[in-house]
Amino acid sequence: MSATKRAAQVASHIITPKADVGLIGLAVMGQNLILNMNDHGFTVCAYNRTTSKVDEFLANEAKGTKIIGAHSIQEFCAKLKRPRKIILLVKAGSAVDQFIAQLEPYLEKGDIVIDGGNSHYPDSIRRTKELEKKGLLFVGSGVSGGEEGARYGPSLMPGGSPAAWPHIKEIFQAIAAKTKEGEPCCDWVGETGSGHYVKMVHNGIEYGDMQIIAEAYDLLKNGLGLSGDEVAETFEDWNKGELDSFLIQITSEILRYKEPGDATPLVEHILDAAGQKGTGKWTAIDALDYGIPVTLIGEAVFARCLSSLKEERVRASTILAGAGLASKDLVVAKSKKEFIEDVRQGMYAAKIISYAQGFMLLREAAKVNNWNLNYGGIALMWRGGCIIRSAFLKDIHTAYIKNPKLDNLLLDPFFTKTVLRCAPSFRRVVAQSSLWGIPVPAYSTALSFFDGYRAAKLPANLIQAQRDYFGAHTYQLEKEGSKGEFKHTNWTGRGGRVAASQYNA
Amino acid sequence: MSATKRAAQVASHIITPKADVGLIGLAVMGQNLILNMNDHGFTVCAYNRTTSKVDEFLANEAKGTKIIGAHSIQEFCAKLKRPRKIILLVKAGSAVDQFIAQLEPYLEKGDIVIDGGNSHYPDSIRRTKELEKKGLLFVGSGVSGGEEGARYGPSLMPGGSPAAWPHIKEIFQAIAAKTKEGEPCCDWVGETGSGHYVKMVHNGIEYGDMQIIAEAYDLLKNGLGLSGDEVAETFEDWNKGELDSFLIQITSEILRYKEPGDATPLVEHILDAAGQKGTGKWTAIDALDYGIPVTLIGEAVFARCLSSLKEERVRASTILAGAGLASKDLVVAKSKKEFIEDVRQGMYAAKIISYAQGFMLLREAAKVNNWNLNYGGIALMWRGGCIIRSAFLKDIHTAYIKNPKLDNLLLDPFFTKTVLRCAPSFRRVVAQSSLWGIPVPAYSTALSFFDGYRAAKLPANLIQAQRDYFGAHTYQLEKEGSKGEFKHTNWTGRGGRVAASQYNA
Repeated sequence: MSATKRAAQVASHIITPKADVGLIGLAVMGQNLILNMNDHGFTVCAYNRTTSKVDEFLANEAKGTKIIGAHSIQEFCAKLKRPRKIILLVKAGSAVDQFIAQLEPYLEKGDIVIDGGNSHYPDSIRRTKELEKKGLLFVGSGVSGGEEGARYGPSLMPGGSPAAWPHIKEIFQAIAAKTKEGEPCCDWVGETGSGHYVKMVHNGIEYGDMQIIAEAYDLLKNGLGLSGDEVAETFEDWNKGELDSFLIQITSEILRYKEPGDATPLVEHILDAAGQKGTGKWTAIDALDYGIPVTLIGEAVFARCLSSLKEERVRASTILAGAGLASKDLVVAKSKKEFIEDVRQGMYAAKIISYAQGFMLLREAAKVNNWNLNYGGIALMWRGGCIIRSAFLKDIHTAYIKNPKLDNLLLDPFFTKTVLRCAPSFRRVVAQSSLWGIPVPAYSTALSFFDGYRAAKLPANLIQAQRDYFGAHTYQLEKEGSKGEFKHTNWTGRGGRVAASQYNA
Repeated sequence: MSATKRAAQVASHIITPKADVGLIGLAVMGQNLILNMNDHGFTVCAYNRTTSKVDEFLANEAKGTKIIGAHSIQEFCAKLKRPRKIILLVKAGSAVDQFIAQLEPYLEKGDIVIDGGNSHYPDSIRRTKELEKKGLLFVGSGVSGGEEGARYGPSLMPGGSPAAWPHIKEIFQAIAAKTKEGEPCCDWVGETGSGHYVKMVHNGIEYGDMQIIAEAYDLLKNGLGLSGDEVAETFEDWNKGELDSFLIQITSEILRYKEPGDATPLVEHILDAAGQKGTGKWTAIDALDYGIPVTLIGEAVFARCLSSLKEERVRASTILAGAGLASKDLVVAKSKKEFIEDVRQGMYAAKIISYAQGFMLLREAAKVNNWNLNYGGIALMWRGGCIIRSAFLKDIHTAYIKNPKLDNLLLDPFFTKTVLRCAPSFRRVVAQSSLWGIPVPAYSTALSFFDGYRAAKLPANLIQAQRDYFGAHTYQLEKEGSKGEFKHTNWTGRGGRVAASQYNA
């Protein structure tokens, strides 16, 4: 037995463990999660690398609570009831590994380490395996909702060692956001890195939702020429129906917000160059890597990239002026009022398609990584506490509860019916925007995906023929399907496998 | 001095070096490149790890030529004139590093190692640096055109150590494909990994070109209801004008090809599930990583992914049937004839936009990697020998020769004029396809990009406001531009930086 191990045992005999859970990392997120757990009756032990922060926290924010503190990792571990439940809220990357290494000598079989930071999921896969080999349990949990979410009810997406869940379920579901019906927005996601994976896809979907809303705002304002107040009113109206969601709500609030003494809403003064923190990008890259057509998130990320080329766009706007319709006439919609409804129904269709794509990616990730994903639970976790929370996620939850093996959201009867109802409007929006010259990358990629997905035959047969013509890549026959053999044809009849030399531009 | 080094010097005194260039790797590509160099008067020394292949080659394909062989790396190096020029055509990855390590003891200052395989560009960046440190020169060259291209004129894209170029220029330009005007489709690309980078982008653009053509074929066949022969005729016709290119040419040949005794063209029997070898995917991932909106290639890759879900699509086609227009009526085009012309002009516009995006990516890669890229030269290299060769690349070449610092292809006067001329047709194609329910992901993403690029103001101001509302991500003001300070607003007036808890779905 090592000296540290022995010291740990001595410490754990001197100190009576009384904390239900421990948390390392006292930045605002960590402090707020601790206060949230305290509110729900759990005794929390707090630790921070710079230990003066522990004292400050106990003397201020945590004053008058049951929260206790520790000034060393050893003391911290000694104060935790078995099996220990330790939440890390530290910077993603090497800091997580360093704390795990520091904790290990003081942990016992069955203890649980929970990483609540923004870790990239391959790290969580690795950490689960490493800790399980040592008899410990690991949980990588997505935490969404920002600082206030952490304080009053975040969306929690825990995945990792399944044996950990019964021990942390009570705490996690107590502190999580709740739906209107009182259900906690937290359930077990699945194995290894699946919790952080689901959080990543959440962020990608958030990019998509925001882009769709931005396009609708552009169409109402610059296509139909509605005033700022009219656009705000439209969003308020939409928020009362099937589009009811946090992002629609804050959009109407943003559109109304004016600085004192200024008649123009603040949003109109804001520079149209959108930043990104990379998680939407990760989702799109992962989709490409797994070969899943998550096109709407891809376009949303690219739209932000294009927006950031502000100076080049301003220059291009003068050179490439007048390439749209001269007037803002309605060509395919009958009236202004009807087109507003088209934009709304088109948005709902695009949103359904985006979520269908997101769940396709989850399904593929589950297959590749051997995760038993809880799709209904995922929809429930996103219903509250996080940025994409909405009424609509209840319908997704229902679809997966009814049929946990559902191949695609678009094939669930409710969503099939809804998307078919919205389709005519959806088409008019893309057609009208194309003629106007107002960019709708998210709406239009969603429509292309929809029409491709419901096409029994796509023109990819021509692509296969081309690939076989110039590169002898071979093809299969339609009648034999994807289990048929691979064939090659000498398309030119001129001999030789490759005919790359004949064309001379 | 090491024993090997000394042995090398002894060998080089016994053997008279007489080969102009050496090549390692006698698969078909390697053999064909050697025969090509021999045709142009160069003496080539051939080597292969399994040396029996050297003898077979000399006794068969190389019989009666000036080609010589070697049976060891030492002998191989001794037979090469200084500075040695050694082309590796071996499997990308560790095999390249292994051969470089084997060669090193026999090389002298200024000798040149050329990797002509399909290496991923970060490897070429690393190899350039490693070899230059040792006083050697490295070239990573994209080679396109397949086996027959290698034999009779490939497109060559060499980058790496600039000091190598004067020594290899004569050979490379002699064996490369030639344009109609006799210009070689090979020029110096730039530093370190730029040659392989340009090849990667070439492949991405190839994906895009193929997808645009596939969509046009779908519109003509399933939108307008043209017969197979009519579609073939249309492509033949197009190939005589500004769309003149290898891919359009082979498309018409493919559409005409019938198996004996079958009245239906073979292409109609081919399974519509397109494969990929990953290079298009790499380009799209790189675009996301660099933050450059290369949307058309992205959609082309995703379209292949969607095509491969054949069984799911067939099922979805019955469930989501009837979501398009009942009839194939023309809504926005005046006649069948006019719409065929719309599809053609739309294709040209989409193609211009795709290449503009590709060159945007090259420009960003040049900035990030400190490459002095020769954009005009790149267009010239793609004019012949490779899959995307076309008349159109001559106009791109001209644009960059006239203005090597051109910010964007769309801002070149010729392309501005052309894209403005094609715009009305382009819009009608996307609008009409959207109403029909025929998927056009490449056409429509190109149009969205075009309209976004020429928009002085995009709706990204709303996205910035949303990000500031829920995450305090801050924003800049339009009037201060991207150099203005970052501001944060308390949008709700309810205090607290984050207002994530109020919405309850």
